[in-house]
Amino acid sequence: MLGRLNHVAIAAPDAVAAGRVYSEGAGAEVSAPVDLPEHGVRVVFVSLPNAKVELLEPLGAESPIAKFLVRNPQGGLHHVCYEVADLVAARDRLVAQGAVPVGDGTPKIGAHGKPVLFFKPTGFSGVLTELEQA
Amino acid sequence: MLGRLNHVAIAAPDAVAAGRVYSEGAGAEVSAPVDLPEHGVRVVFVSLPNAKVELLEPLGAESPIAKFLVRNPQGGLHHVCYEVADLVAARDRLVAQGAVPVGDGTPKIGAHGKPVLFFKPTGFSGVLTELEQA
Repeated sequence: MLGRLNHVAIAAPDAVAAGRVYSEGAGAEVSAPVDLPEHGVRVVFVSLPNAKVELLEPLGAESPIAKFLVRNPQGGLHHVCYEVADLVAARDRLVAQGAVPVGDGTPKIGAHGKPVLFFKPTGFSGVLTELEQA
Repeated sequence: MLGRLNHVAIAAPDAVAAGRVYSEGAGAEVSAPVDLPEHGVRVVFVSLPNAKVELLEPLGAESPIAKFLVRNPQGGLHHVCYEVADLVAARDRLVAQGAVPVGDGTPKIGAHGKPVLFFKPTGFSGVLTELEQA
């Protein structure tokens, strides 16, 4: 059963600069940047009452965000993350419906320290979709 | 002050087909399609515990979704909508920070029957951003 919308991830060339419209412009709580070198991103978190927006800046040469920014130089919506109670069961049900995991389908520990799995945009109307074990 | 993330809107060539991965694949509550000819869209709502995903299919020749699908034939993330308590005050503060409203900046009645205003992707890291009066 699909749970909460955990976050919307927006790629940006400069996460701190990208956060200003949310903090100074909209009065939202915006974090200091957090470097996650093992995930190849610098993240600025925008905290909303019911969910988060994550502003992702490439970190390192192997960043998964770098190619996205080549295609979208000013940034853009990168992925959406939903919570599930049982990630393996959710994966198996989605795969049975034709969804295609990124990689070999084995959950990995994500940026929040919880198991996650990405699904290719094909099957989700062109949207890269992340599931996170709640 | 930026409020709740109200919805993520995903454009799709066929909203009902796009909804199946969420209903049959992920067990989410997915609505029947709702035609909103005055907004040029057919919408399928995916209800999550804390927010909604709106699957938007073009309706009519003037649909704002049609051009997006020409560029993104399989669909894609179209916009993000946040709630604010005072839409005009939020607009004025964002404009003072350099954000640019779509149109003349006058709130219109949106698909949920509440005043809304869209801001151009420039200024929001390439993301079309909607504010809705809560």
